[in-house]
Amino acid sequence: MSEPHLLPLLDAPPPERRDAARNRERLLGAAKELVERDGAHAVTMDAVATAAGVGKGTLFRRFESREGLMAAVLNHSESEWQAQVMSGPPPLGPGAEPWDRLLVFGRTRLETTLLHAELIREAGRSGARASGAYSFAATHVRYLLSQLRVSGDIPLLAVAILAPLELPILEQVSLDGFPVDRFYDGWVDLARRVVGRSA
Amino acid sequence: MSEPHLLPLLDAPPPERRDAARNRERLLGAAKELVERDGAHAVTMDAVATAAGVGKGTLFRRFESREGLMAAVLNHSESEWQAQVMSGPPPLGPGAEPWDRLLVFGRTRLETTLLHAELIREAGRSGARASGAYSFAATHVRYLLSQLRVSGDIPLLAVAILAPLELPILEQVSLDGFPVDRFYDGWVDLARRVVGRSA
Repeated sequence: MSEPHLLPLLDAPPPERRDAARNRERLLGAAKELVERDGAHAVTMDAVATAAGVGKGTLFRRFESREGLMAAVLNHSESEWQAQVMSGPPPLGPGAEPWDRLLVFGRTRLETTLLHAELIREAGRSGARASGAYSFAATHVRYLLSQLRVSGDIPLLAVAILAPLELPILEQVSLDGFPVDRFYDGWVDLARRVVGRSA
Repeated sequence: MSEPHLLPLLDAPPPERRDAARNRERLLGAAKELVERDGAHAVTMDAVATAAGVGKGTLFRRFESREGLMAAVLNHSESEWQAQVMSGPPPLGPGAEPWDRLLVFGRTRLETTLLHAELIREAGRSGARASGAYSFAATHVRYLLSQLRVSGDIPLLAVAILAPLELPILEQVSLDGFPVDRFYDGWVDLARRVVGRSA
């Protein structure tokens, strides 16, 4: 207790809570890596425990069930993407031209939506997607459109740009064996039309 | 039975079934008129029975509950709109320029969506909107876009044009006290951008 940095700070969680948070991050990180590599459907609790170097019991104590773990990965991934948009490096984060930010927003939104589609399925009832996710995306696109000095009804134009990136629409377009690059090219073309920007 | 047109035709329903169908149409027509005039929330079974000139018992025998009646009005209204699009008079129906058809499609879709939003609420669990409603609209917009010789990814562009007219989006935009004309103007501007047509 003689080292100042070992004294608990007023706002800092006590050491055991900090450890728990770190462990949780590590478990989620391992799960997310496996989900991205193999697809959520292929990820078992055994595999996550092995990858994170913990016993399976630890994993169940922390997340209750495979569904609970998938729901936690889903929330974590959404929050991480939002943090990147708000304050990550450009061009997704602040500091790049608004058109470049819009393009990488669309690309990463499409990728997270596809990743989350599978997570939502695997998380079952625990995986209801927060309606906040849509509001966040809509607010950000409206902001970029006004930065681009787009004339017209910004909220309505934002809805049109976002629609093809949202899950219910992607499912209607047919999700399986989905050609992501072709879809992204079509979305960029749409965004150009709405923003009034030639290729 | 001496008049040929009174002979039952092979494919025609027997007279009592025809009567029942006519009565049902009349009850639905009366209910729809009241819904359009006063809003679904204000329509009582008493008022519908009085307007249709039948006893309230008849109404309940036919539709079981107020929710059941509202669900029937919803289905009827959706089918009627689809029939107008497919084979009604121009410019909603065939025979007009595709751009004029697209405009009146957008306007009437917006109006039916707003009408149906209230019906879906009043119909409760009976009122789950058929997913066929979206497919129909998407198919029609894709058809009009190809008639307009729009280049690009037609299904994706159709999604963008349709999105602001759909219920979940309208609810996010905020439904109450909704300025329909202003919204429609914004939608026309969007359609111009997507189709590549100047004002």
